[in-house]
Amino acid sequence: MTDLSSVLDRADRNLPESLERLFGLVRIKSISTDPAFKPDCRKAAEWLVAELKDLGFEASVRDTTGHPMVVGHHPGASADAPHVLFYGHYDVQPIDPIELWEDDPFDPKVKELGPGRKVVTGRGVADDKGQLMTFVEACRAYKDVHGSLPVRVTILFEGEEESGSPSLKPFLDANAAELKADYALVCDTGMWDADTPAITASLRGLVGEEIIVTAANRDLHSGMYGGAAANPIQILSKILAGLHDDTGRVTLEGFYDGIEETPSNIKAAWESLVAGRDDFLGEVGLSELAGERGRSLLELIWARPTCEFNGISGGYEGQGFKTVIASKASAKVSCRLVGGQDPEKIRESFRAYVRSKIPADCSVEFLKHGGSPAIQLGYDSPVLTKAKTALSEEWPKPALLVGVGGSIPIVGDFQKTLGMESLLVGFGLSDDRIHSPNEKYDLRSFHKGIRSWARIIAALAA
Amino acid sequence: MTDLSSVLDRADRNLPESLERLFGLVRIKSISTDPAFKPDCRKAAEWLVAELKDLGFEASVRDTTGHPMVVGHHPGASADAPHVLFYGHYDVQPIDPIELWEDDPFDPKVKELGPGRKVVTGRGVADDKGQLMTFVEACRAYKDVHGSLPVRVTILFEGEEESGSPSLKPFLDANAAELKADYALVCDTGMWDADTPAITASLRGLVGEEIIVTAANRDLHSGMYGGAAANPIQILSKILAGLHDDTGRVTLEGFYDGIEETPSNIKAAWESLVAGRDDFLGEVGLSELAGERGRSLLELIWARPTCEFNGISGGYEGQGFKTVIASKASAKVSCRLVGGQDPEKIRESFRAYVRSKIPADCSVEFLKHGGSPAIQLGYDSPVLTKAKTALSEEWPKPALLVGVGGSIPIVGDFQKTLGMESLLVGFGLSDDRIHSPNEKYDLRSFHKGIRSWARIIAALAA
Repeated sequence: MTDLSSVLDRADRNLPESLERLFGLVRIKSISTDPAFKPDCRKAAEWLVAELKDLGFEASVRDTTGHPMVVGHHPGASADAPHVLFYGHYDVQPIDPIELWEDDPFDPKVKELGPGRKVVTGRGVADDKGQLMTFVEACRAYKDVHGSLPVRVTILFEGEEESGSPSLKPFLDANAAELKADYALVCDTGMWDADTPAITASLRGLVGEEIIVTAANRDLHSGMYGGAAANPIQILSKILAGLHDDTGRVTLEGFYDGIEETPSNIKAAWESLVAGRDDFLGEVGLSELAGERGRSLLELIWARPTCEFNGISGGYEGQGFKTVIASKASAKVSCRLVGGQDPEKIRESFRAYVRSKIPADCSVEFLKHGGSPAIQLGYDSPVLTKAKTALSEEWPKPALLVGVGGSIPIVGDFQKTLGMESLLVGFGLSDDRIHSPNEKYDLRSFHKGIRSWARIIAALAA
Repeated sequence: MTDLSSVLDRADRNLPESLERLFGLVRIKSISTDPAFKPDCRKAAEWLVAELKDLGFEASVRDTTGHPMVVGHHPGASADAPHVLFYGHYDVQPIDPIELWEDDPFDPKVKELGPGRKVVTGRGVADDKGQLMTFVEACRAYKDVHGSLPVRVTILFEGEEESGSPSLKPFLDANAAELKADYALVCDTGMWDADTPAITASLRGLVGEEIIVTAANRDLHSGMYGGAAANPIQILSKILAGLHDDTGRVTLEGFYDGIEETPSNIKAAWESLVAGRDDFLGEVGLSELAGERGRSLLELIWARPTCEFNGISGGYEGQGFKTVIASKASAKVSCRLVGGQDPEKIRESFRAYVRSKIPADCSVEFLKHGGSPAIQLGYDSPVLTKAKTALSEEWPKPALLVGVGGSIPIVGDFQKTLGMESLLVGFGLSDDRIHSPNEKYDLRSFHKGIRSWARIIAALAA
């Protein structure tokens, strides 16, 4: 069971079929946030159960009030081997604006992206279907060579990660004994750059809110009512504009409670790191740091909170012009959280602020869209050290410990509900266009990702 | 040719067929702002030409670079009779949000709206198809009784009134000699209340702009980029929020240039008028005057300018949530103008303000949507006096001279291009829901509107 090189060879030889299996999963339109795709989400779950059964897992689709979970158990080669819980999500983001996709988002392809660089295209190929399949295919290589796995493995795939994971916490609570392992492996993060793997030590939290402002009880003609009737787009604009001051700080009361300043030596290390990196903003056509003034790039995206406007809608949005005063206007707002910020306190502070800006004859409705605090992992765990060594052996450059700006609520839930730390390893790259048109996943990420997991589970078993 | 009462009787007897003809016109989906309905706009023009020919007009569809015009000429009973140009528009507003309509907007019906009150429902039934048909049906009653009309009539129906009338000015310029008459009759306004007819003496102008703010060259993940990358919805919100100060005044430089304060005796008259009226804001679910503080309702909607936000769009607007930082966000903004405000100067001031708020690495695009100055008609014209008497004889209460808050660009163009004043008479009511779902036109407005025009043209011919 220690012959790692034959497993890695097997992973190499399996690659064409591994890719075919990934394509099969990407073809399923498992958009969790849109109710129209509910049957597709179930189909993705069923597809994964079939895969896991084929690998010797006892696996099943597990219903929730939303999209189902996939749970699988593999006994491993020995009852006293370490026990890991591997987590991924099979749901994907919506595909709009569809007209900006070069290819059908649900018909994955291998394309050449510059000399010698091949990528797989399609919605969810990087977030998170390609990533979760690196682990599944690593298991397959082990099974093909050794007939079993070197560690005991529980799998948990959820289908609501892109829509706030409403069923996750209740499911963990109800199945805590079944899901508890020594630690979790989570594959939903990225590399530092194309040659440098990364293990994530901190994650920002998230609190999401949708606000719907209503003024008149119907749309009005702006000639007849303009100047006399409240305009909900104007009210909403004032609300949003008031959320940041002129220095880019968020104005909500208590917003910065619980945040400690990052130590200056760490800030200095981040500044030297980013100096050697590709042009993070330039790649997306920007050149100036937005957000809080006087802070560096990595501090802004890893260690500082935000308040972002993710969507806004109201009045006539079609071609041409309509001189209407809308009845309603709405916005989706989310805050990224760091340190000890409390999502529910921030939600309440946000709602109190918004309510204070609504005229007496207008009203506001709030829709809650998920909430999770930030996470900071321990730097000294032996699991993290083993994974760092395994990754450094696979890739050209040694693995880095980094932060990520996005939230992975599961990590907080594993800690709170199952008392379990998470090892966050992933192979995404900064140009993967996740959540955007033309999402892709490097073929090298997929291939070396499979090999990386094979190395990591070997190291954990040792 | 002076037997008015036989014409009025005939109009009464014609009513069921008049209504059938109106239904025929409303069934044509002539939405001018949406290119998908271009063939329907032409169909409406052709329908009207056939009607006019049936009444003895020499009529034709006249092409423009946009939707066609309808022009018709009737010689009247005598070559020295007064010559009027009647104007209306056959195009209608879009129907969104369609889910709020109780009936198919293009399948008109007569419905009972409270005891004894019948209304015709459908998109455009009040704005402006029902209104223009009151004049056409008045002509028909005359023709049925007398074989001819007491005045010489030129008809001009346009198909772009709801989308900024881009072809109107060039068409008037190119056909000035053909279209010039003694004065214009325009039927696109409303009654003071259900018993009190109104002649409009002032009209607000309009300048419309669409702004599209672009930040990154693609949509971004708010976890990965949030706090570092510019957010176009945030930029747009700040722009819109900065357009009004805390007293509701518009902040654009030079915005109030050319406006004279309304004389205090007129303001006092307006305050007493509105005291006797139905609850203007209460009808639409509001209770507080928005806009400039310290001004009365009629002053705000007739004599003060506005800056309204008619639509806003950006980021994820579907169900659920998407943690995206959009590449683009856009808004449709329009100002209602009064007195001597210059639409093009205000457009430039608006654009300069917006540009000053765009960060160096972001950009903004402007789309122009029409512009026309405000109009103030002469109170002393004999035409106006004759019309006032004719209307007062038809309706329970005497006719009022009023302002309207909406713009009718044609009135300015008739003045500038053809040196012709306009008499603005219409039979809409404040609850007609024009531009909104469930648009209606009172059957009484239609019936007595036809009778009113019969009286007016008799008075003009006298």
